[in-house]
Amino acid sequence: MHIEVIANIGEARSDEFLHKTVIVVDVLRATSTIITALMNGSKGVVPVDTVNKAKELAREGDLLGGERFCKKIPGFDFGNSPLEYTSAALQGKRIILTTTNGTRGIQKAIKADSVLAGALMNGRAAAAAAIDLKRDTVILCAGTQDVFSLEDGLCAGLILEEIAIQLGESQMMTNDFGLAMRGCYLDAKDHLFETILACSNGKKMKKSGFLADVELCSQINISHCVPVLEVDQMVPFQR
Amino acid sequence: MHIEVIANIGEARSDEFLHKTVIVVDVLRATSTIITALMNGSKGVVPVDTVNKAKELAREGDLLGGERFCKKIPGFDFGNSPLEYTSAALQGKRIILTTTNGTRGIQKAIKADSVLAGALMNGRAAAAAAIDLKRDTVILCAGTQDVFSLEDGLCAGLILEEIAIQLGESQMMTNDFGLAMRGCYLDAKDHLFETILACSNGKKMKKSGFLADVELCSQINISHCVPVLEVDQMVPFQR
Repeated sequence: MHIEVIANIGEARSDEFLHKTVIVVDVLRATSTIITALMNGSKGVVPVDTVNKAKELAREGDLLGGERFCKKIPGFDFGNSPLEYTSAALQGKRIILTTTNGTRGIQKAIKADSVLAGALMNGRAAAAAAIDLKRDTVILCAGTQDVFSLEDGLCAGLILEEIAIQLGESQMMTNDFGLAMRGCYLDAKDHLFETILACSNGKKMKKSGFLADVELCSQINISHCVPVLEVDQMVPFQR
Repeated sequence: MHIEVIANIGEARSDEFLHKTVIVVDVLRATSTIITALMNGSKGVVPVDTVNKAKELAREGDLLGGERFCKKIPGFDFGNSPLEYTSAALQGKRIILTTTNGTRGIQKAIKADSVLAGALMNGRAAAAAAIDLKRDTVILCAGTQDVFSLEDGLCAGLILEEIAIQLGESQMMTNDFGLAMRGCYLDAKDHLFETILACSNGKKMKKSGFLADVELCSQINISHCVPVLEVDQMVPFQR
């Protein structure tokens, strides 16, 4: 199985995703949030790129979520903190979500055969889903404004490590950037929280009062839920 | 001290190098070759981007070196294998060198205050030279045709690690990509040769009969020589 890791959305070209599985990774925080929302009973998360589109799409009973510059959008039900997406209010609800980078990553991957959402919290399950789908796979690290973000690279490394464990070492082929991310994950795996706190988005999150988000999003393999794009919304992947 | 690591030449913008020190890294093989040539008595290496320019520049007594697609250029004295640059014939000679990626990296960095050549073999010395120069520093990984190459990232990680050791941990600041490269280096440092053999250029070198080059270029801190650009040629950096 060949898995290519791409460092940020700016480096991705939509056409190269044809016939492939793409795992979009935005650990802080879009994909962690989508996973948490689906785990907690939301029936689907619709990722959109603008605030206006989110408002237009929302029908009676839908919830609106999202952020700009790490802050909740005025008038929305939720921001982009996964910790907000644990309430009973989510049960059976559709969420329209707009975020800066994660949503763009999902849009960019739209030509793929399957678009999954990966994060540290579901790394093992995302690896298993990609194996099930039996396609060449791309791990698209969302990054931040077209710059690589360490936490997304660590997640790519985790997914590669899990694929190597599940399929066997000789069956996991990746590009040089993937090899680097796997090494970087293996070096950091026993202190992921501290490592992420020391990187650009980790520091930004802490400064903005979202330390608990970093703590939650740094935990590995705590969820079996893998969001997959069906038409326009992310729903739980069924094996 | 702030050190930014750039993944490949295509991502670099010349203007961002103003007033900075740039360490160009092309482990396989341009910068390893330049270091080896200067260590073995060459008085200077002139990096140029085309074969024609190399021929035009060469004066009586100069040696011509370089490669295209890993192979020596017809009529040239040497290819781009550092192992060729150990002979007594180099003593006091100027070498005109043209390679695919390393030379381009040096040209791209031309607006910097100082342009150094780094490789695994001189990582510690390159770190010390950058510290001496007291400027913000960029480590420019040459990569291959604008794609990241693992061996260059490992070298960036080694240089960051050395700067942290020499200056103290709290004095070494880097971008997220630098943090990732440092982690990836720390994970691989006890088996660099095997790690590089498993990556894209390592496999290509082995296939082309240059296994001994990979072995030599995978050794860390075996040289005190740091090439620095003076006008148009790389000469040994003097502290």
